[in-house]
Amino acid sequence: MTTPPADAHLPFADKSDPRFFGKDILSISQFSRNDLETVFAVAREMSQIVEHGGGSELLKGRVLTNLFYEPSTRTSSSFVAAIERLGGSVIQINNVTYSSVSKGESLGDTVRTMESYTDAIVLRHPEMGSAAEAAIAATKPIINAGDGAGEHPTQALLDAYTIYEEMGAIDGLTVTMLGDLKYGRTVHSLARLLALFNVKINYVSPAILRMPLEFVSEVESAGIEQVVTSDLKAVLEDTDVLYVTRIQKERFDDQVEYEMVKDSYVVDADTMRCAKERMIVMHPLPRIGEIATEVDQDPRAAYFRQMEYGLYVRMALLALVLGKA
Amino acid sequence: MTTPPADAHLPFADKSDPRFFGKDILSISQFSRNDLETVFAVAREMSQIVEHGGGSELLKGRVLTNLFYEPSTRTSSSFVAAIERLGGSVIQINNVTYSSVSKGESLGDTVRTMESYTDAIVLRHPEMGSAAEAAIAATKPIINAGDGAGEHPTQALLDAYTIYEEMGAIDGLTVTMLGDLKYGRTVHSLARLLALFNVKINYVSPAILRMPLEFVSEVESAGIEQVVTSDLKAVLEDTDVLYVTRIQKERFDDQVEYEMVKDSYVVDADTMRCAKERMIVMHPLPRIGEIATEVDQDPRAAYFRQMEYGLYVRMALLALVLGKA
Amino acid sequence: MTTPPADAHLPFADKSDPRFFGKDILSISQFSRNDLETVFAVAREMSQIVEHGGGSELLKGRVLTNLFYEPSTRTSSSFVAAIERLGGSVIQINNVTYSSVSKGESLGDTVRTMESYTDAIVLRHPEMGSAAEAAIAATKPIINAGDGAGEHPTQALLDAYTIYEEMGAIDGLTVTMLGDLKYGRTVHSLARLLALFNVKINYVSPAILRMPLEFVSEVESAGIEQVVTSDLKAVLEDTDVLYVTRIQKERFDDQVEYEMVKDSYVVDADTMRCAKERMIVMHPLPRIGEIATEVDQDPRAAYFRQMEYGLYVRMALLALVLGKA
Repeated sequence: MTTPPADAHLPFADKSDPRFFGKDILSISQFSRNDLETVFAVAREMSQIVEHGGGSELLKGRVLTNLFYEPSTRTSSSFVAAIERLGGSVIQINNVTYSSVSKGESLGDTVRTMESYTDAIVLRHPEMGSAAEAAIAATKPIINAGDGAGEHPTQALLDAYTIYEEMGAIDGLTVTMLGDLKYGRTVHSLARLLALFNVKINYVSPAILRMPLEFVSEVESAGIEQVVTSDLKAVLEDTDVLYVTRIQKERFDDQVEYEMVKDSYVVDADTMRCAKERMIVMHPLPRIGEIATEVDQDPRAAYFRQMEYGLYVRMALLALVLGKA
Repeated sequence: MTTPPADAHLPFADKSDPRFFGKDILSISQFSRNDLETVFAVAREMSQIVEHGGGSELLKGRVLTNLFYEPSTRTSSSFVAAIERLGGSVIQINNVTYSSVSKGESLGDTVRTMESYTDAIVLRHPEMGSAAEAAIAATKPIINAGDGAGEHPTQALLDAYTIYEEMGAIDGLTVTMLGDLKYGRTVHSLARLLALFNVKINYVSPAILRMPLEFVSEVESAGIEQVVTSDLKAVLEDTDVLYVTRIQKERFDDQVEYEMVKDSYVVDADTMRCAKERMIVMHPLPRIGEIATEVDQDPRAAYFRQMEYGLYVRMALLALVLGKA
Repeated sequence: MTTPPADAHLPFADKSDPRFFGKDILSISQFSRNDLETVFAVAREMSQIVEHGGGSELLKGRVLTNLFYEPSTRTSSSFVAAIERLGGSVIQINNVTYSSVSKGESLGDTVRTMESYTDAIVLRHPEMGSAAEAAIAATKPIINAGDGAGEHPTQALLDAYTIYEEMGAIDGLTVTMLGDLKYGRTVHSLARLLALFNVKINYVSPAILRMPLEFVSEVESAGIEQVVTSDLKAVLEDTDVLYVTRIQKERFDDQVEYEMVKDSYVVDADTMRCAKERMIVMHPLPRIGEIATEVDQDPRAAYFRQMEYGLYVRMALLALVLGKA
């Protein structure tokens, strides 16, 4: 199976695709390879809409709830821009005080209230499983924008779309994940999603921050070649995609170990000199030093373009989920 | 006088109705029965607009200020959705720090500033009388979205509209109000509004949370039959509309009394078995246990539909107040 | 050189003016007198758009980021109304937690993220120079909405536009600045901007709150007549524009001195009796007593109209910066 050619065109009629229309987006496990290719094709159309004038009227009159129980400016802003560029609008709800008794409404009741005003709900919540809980209460689509240690499927989709657009295809690539692979929700989801393609994955991290075995096993069962190492140099020169994540000080009991480890995984101009000429560096952002700013000027630095791809993927998901039949 | 038939159609030309155009919405006492019927008819048109595609361009280019001096996610969101579904947009102002000296601008000055940018102001303020104060300062319409112990007229209007739509008419109904009738602004306003119709009202509450005499007297002078009791069972089987409110722990000096009272007014599946087959349960929400979640599946549970009617009523009010001449 | 006649009409074709299209708005020093006249002419067109129906579709599909690192409801709201009245929309970001390590993203990275979603960024930041820093990181236009002790160019532009519209021209006027002229960023910028015209400027303040010498020197080098005094009466009767600013208690070590000074600069009905019949009183707002509310009814009180002019100036700037080529 091959990825579609770069000029593949999905007609808008397909937006009423029954695989997406009216559906929740809760987990990357919902997506087949074919589904991904649909999302990518629609995302590409969205990028063309934005290039040619900024927006469309596709979702005119539609209202989205952006329900954020914890702050996430980046994700929240991306969804706001996505619905607005499609002609719709948004109700932004931040800092929901869900813990106090006086305002102690259940998540289900809040969701049922907001769906009585709006057409879909983007939910960010600190507790794992909350998106699924909301989806049970709701009759309108719930889009999971991160549920604690659970999933953040639109992040994984935008990561995959970035690779697809930047490299022309996902099949055949070697993807190296770097940094905190133990606690990083982003890399867990991306690894799972990449397992739908024909790739090789390298995991580079300090010993205490290794990719959890459950993910390695799951990816292995899809027939994907994986390498676990703590040495970036060993795998860098074969890497097509270097996915960098932040190593948080709080993860270490021994601060000496942290200081040592931290510096050994900084991506800088030296790192880039050892990398392929045609490869990309990604990062979910924010970055706090794990990629030196000197790398920003390197055309292989794809992390800001990655944000923009995120806009297109979220536009695509909204259009697919809310598309008229 | 009868309520209009369910298919009554008020042409949009009527939006420049001089009773509403450019006017403030400060108190339910502004509304005659005839006014209510106009609001209901326009609200029904609004529900049709939302059903058929999500929105309209009726208020395109119009900007609303949502000025909230205290949080009220539900009311605020409802107005945001209302203006956006009509093609307009909103400036949301939360957490106005009006108490500090450095930012100690008067309400009048804030209102005059915001009306220089926008076409109308929705005001939520903790102090009774603040909406009237704002209306004096402003030249553009002020919509009172709750002024402390004062009024919250759009809540009362949406409550009345819910009854009207769910039961087909308001005349001839028996409405039972349950819970905290002393401090509940919602039931005070609703009782006054219902007094414009031919209804019977039952007040069911613990003795210390009775409907204040001033409201009972006012409603009585309109010729409305009223029953005051602490026993829900005594009136439940004749009830067409059961309006439930929350009993707040803080109202009780004696916590033992609270615990006893609290449980005796929970509406659950047992309660519903004793109720009419054709009746509705309403609640202004949020609810924290005073209606068991098992009731949610009962078709008589109207409290989530009530939120949706609120959207249509607020759309209707905005269209009427801002409608072109 | 004369200001254009009141009915001067700048055709919309001019919006793709290369002096503005795609440019940052960082400092008033960018603006020539000719640039100002263009902004004023477009602002007047904007006022006509708002008068005739509320909005336009000029910036349909365009999305603005309102990035506020410190609160400024007035400025923020004004930009929101401006983009919305032009058919565009906004991503509002308040209370950016930029100091914590966990969210310690650099301003440059935040700006690059937001520009990947949107078409321009309005930035309010407590640190001087931050707008210029953001502009270096960004490829899309940055509009400085106040950078600490630095500049707030759109405030100065709206102040100048207010004078222009209210008095018919700026040349030939006597402008008196009153209050805290030492710390008030507003009067510093306005003085600089007025130096592009043929005006006389009076500075009235307590001795300890005088206009800093650097500004006086700069304005003097433009050939502008300036008078420094602590006596309002001495200059009031020749004043065409009285620009009032607030004297903050915190500026005084000696609270007795503060109390004495504070009252001597309050503008009230008595003050207005000594002023010209054709003159205006301006204030950047909020005011906390330095202009008595009894003055509000005086037709010479222009401070609320000043807010409205601010809307038109910001609409003009957005249209000029984002206008299609």
